[in-house]
Amino acid sequence: MEKNRADLIVKARFVITFSDDEKDVVEDGAVIIKDGRILDILKINEAERLYDAATTIEGENHVVLPGFVNTHTHAAMVYFRGMADDLPLKVWLEEHIWPAESKMLSPEFIRDATELACLEMIKAGVVLFNDMYFYEEASAEVIKKAGMRAVLGAGVLDFPTSIAQNTDEYLQKAETFIKQFRDDPLVVPAISPHAPYTCSPETYKRAISIAEKYSVPVHTHLSETQWEVEEIKKLYGATPIEHLERHGLLRDFMLAAHVVWPTEQEMDILARRGVSVSHCLESNLKLASGIAPVVRMMKRGVRVTIGTDGAASNNDLDVLGELSVVSKIHKAMEGDPTVLDAKTSLKMATTLGYEALGLANVAGRLKKGMAADLIMIDLRKPHLMPLYDVFSHLVYSAKSSDVSTVIINGRVIMKDYKVLTIDEEEVYTRASNWKKRIQEAFNG
Amino acid sequence: MEKNRADLIVKARFVITFSDDEKDVVEDGAVIIKDGRILDILKINEAERLYDAATTIEGENHVVLPGFVNTHTHAAMVYFRGMADDLPLKVWLEEHIWPAESKMLSPEFIRDATELACLEMIKAGVVLFNDMYFYEEASAEVIKKAGMRAVLGAGVLDFPTSIAQNTDEYLQKAETFIKQFRDDPLVVPAISPHAPYTCSPETYKRAISIAEKYSVPVHTHLSETQWEVEEIKKLYGATPIEHLERHGLLRDFMLAAHVVWPTEQEMDILARRGVSVSHCLESNLKLASGIAPVVRMMKRGVRVTIGTDGAASNNDLDVLGELSVVSKIHKAMEGDPTVLDAKTSLKMATTLGYEALGLANVAGRLKKGMAADLIMIDLRKPHLMPLYDVFSHLVYSAKSSDVSTVIINGRVIMKDYKVLTIDEEEVYTRASNWKKRIQEAFNG
Repeated sequence: MEKNRADLIVKARFVITFSDDEKDVVEDGAVIIKDGRILDILKINEAERLYDAATTIEGENHVVLPGFVNTHTHAAMVYFRGMADDLPLKVWLEEHIWPAESKMLSPEFIRDATELACLEMIKAGVVLFNDMYFYEEASAEVIKKAGMRAVLGAGVLDFPTSIAQNTDEYLQKAETFIKQFRDDPLVVPAISPHAPYTCSPETYKRAISIAEKYSVPVHTHLSETQWEVEEIKKLYGATPIEHLERHGLLRDFMLAAHVVWPTEQEMDILARRGVSVSHCLESNLKLASGIAPVVRMMKRGVRVTIGTDGAASNNDLDVLGELSVVSKIHKAMEGDPTVLDAKTSLKMATTLGYEALGLANVAGRLKKGMAADLIMIDLRKPHLMPLYDVFSHLVYSAKSSDVSTVIINGRVIMKDYKVLTIDEEEVYTRASNWKKRIQEAFNG
Repeated sequence: MEKNRADLIVKARFVITFSDDEKDVVEDGAVIIKDGRILDILKINEAERLYDAATTIEGENHVVLPGFVNTHTHAAMVYFRGMADDLPLKVWLEEHIWPAESKMLSPEFIRDATELACLEMIKAGVVLFNDMYFYEEASAEVIKKAGMRAVLGAGVLDFPTSIAQNTDEYLQKAETFIKQFRDDPLVVPAISPHAPYTCSPETYKRAISIAEKYSVPVHTHLSETQWEVEEIKKLYGATPIEHLERHGLLRDFMLAAHVVWPTEQEMDILARRGVSVSHCLESNLKLASGIAPVVRMMKRGVRVTIGTDGAASNNDLDVLGELSVVSKIHKAMEGDPTVLDAKTSLKMATTLGYEALGLANVAGRLKKGMAADLIMIDLRKPHLMPLYDVFSHLVYSAKSSDVSTVIINGRVIMKDYKVLTIDEEEVYTRASNWKKRIQEAFNG
């Protein structure tokens, strides 16, 4: 019998599909990939009988699963990682982060820093991330070179910075960026009104209009701190989510980062409007912002996903590391060890991330026709022995350093722990050089 | 000039000494080791001028620091890792863990499982652990072979199990074990009355007498859950710590694991009696036991250290992973991002662990005369770039998989990520075989 021709076959002891129409786990499975897409998922012996491929990856002691999704970050902030810790939020922002940004941000800075962030995320099995920052066209350049998938939100503020003089200019820059990348296969441009305390309702309205015009997502911070809640009450007489709702500014293509302090009513609003949430637990813990009521939001039907926030506040871009804490902490918060079981948690960090970013039809599940965005986790580690339940091991025991192989849009980006699209040594040298410039800018 | 002869010189970009009488960090430093002890800590150029050694480890892009200490675990429970998750505590214990223990525990099981635990801990940079389980003489055998340091507490209960028929027999077995290992250079025998709800005050008293007779530590569970607090109140009319205090059963050679629910008065009692605490955050979160008031305990002078608990409840033995969560969560619990700064956190996982286990004079700081228990962390990782502050990176960004080299009592146990004292393949094969036996015992 003539075999069908594929580009790539990935074999594994377990294939986690999260494909609702069939089994969630295929043991001794194989993913057949052609032209960047999944042709089929079969038992290994079936795959061998039916398909030939230019390349086969043998994953005897591996799990294959959809890659991790980081639904909220400021990737280029990796260059500020560990520059200022253990400080009150106001001091951290006003005396360290904002001055650093105002002195340093440039397309070159963003490009080089984002490449380091891509290297870190690829090594941690992150295949898709949702960014909010500035000069996103410079980010897009290195992200495409790295082969990652990303949603890039051009930042909008109501006050002048080195990026733009006024709201009009921010919005104009965002629209130009969106037009430039709207047909890109890997990078989805987006618009990012920063937060209710830095953007007026009118600015949100204009940002949403641009998003609707080009069918792109909106990415914003929302209800992060108790200070924000009080500030928005003072300014507008309502809590942050209620405030946006009153102005008709919530949409199902909107992703809200943090949402630490929603009222019961606000959770219902988010569910009703289809707004997705990025839970940035480690950042919220480290900055003492609080712990979001994730289980209660999920019970009301809010889609909750996992974000790392920027590396200046977390201090890494490790979605699996974040998940490991998320999956445990809410059991204690609810006083119930049965909530957020391992499988539910794993979906928050994978499938639901694609859904939240409007990419449910692109990837996030391993099934026929989907883009091949997947990772392999190496089970040959002492902390993954013995194995009773693969979901338990992935969520409660695996580390991001167990990710051995990363495939995005059918392209092998990392193989056997080696990133193929980025020169690590060059990235490290540039990071070290930029650090010197940052320190000189502060001390000079 | 004739150079002095050493066994081993370890060079690094940073040496974190935690030696209070000199600088806590030596940049471009070298640790000089002879006969298992630290001869000196010098700048690299000084070390090269003054010393020759049979072996030199070049750590150009590394940090050297005292190894991590796991102050509460049941090492052999790694064989039950991931066997039962997301369950109520009672179901988890009564329907899964206790039946598994009663069917499986034997000296062979303990020996093989403990070897897997040692492999996992060495790879995660743990050099010393405090165990509580049964057949500790079987553990001791593989721990000595692995070259690790450990305090092994022979478990004592007031009810019969496969280990012993009654309290007398448990105590007798513990004393025999203590006599057997009391002069060992690496293994410290200890006694472990399990908890106030499984051991009467009389049993605690007898265990403490044995500990005093041989000058060994006592290791117990204390105030882990709200259920325990209520149960002890019912049984004895006092909360758990108050109960032990009333019976005169608290000592400064005692380590209490968990301590999730102490009252303010109980925190003062622990401080006054010099009882050390093992904070097992991830286990307490995952089993929904609660979050210990660590910052308030530390403010009152209680020595708080880091434990992983057994891998059936956590689900790993990764002290650095635990520390990463500990260092952030208490900022949110206290609403203050300045508490538990990176340096303070790092000491909880290293120096204070030795102090809590009565080994402050043996190691836990890098200074002249101390045993050479140290690890090297590889800074050449994307998540550790760029570097502004080494303490921040170790606590907020490093992963246990960045530990490249482990030295215990002057002996190189792991070098360049390769464990030299354990055959990994054999350990994995045995884990897989035991898993089959465990599953057969449950299904048969």
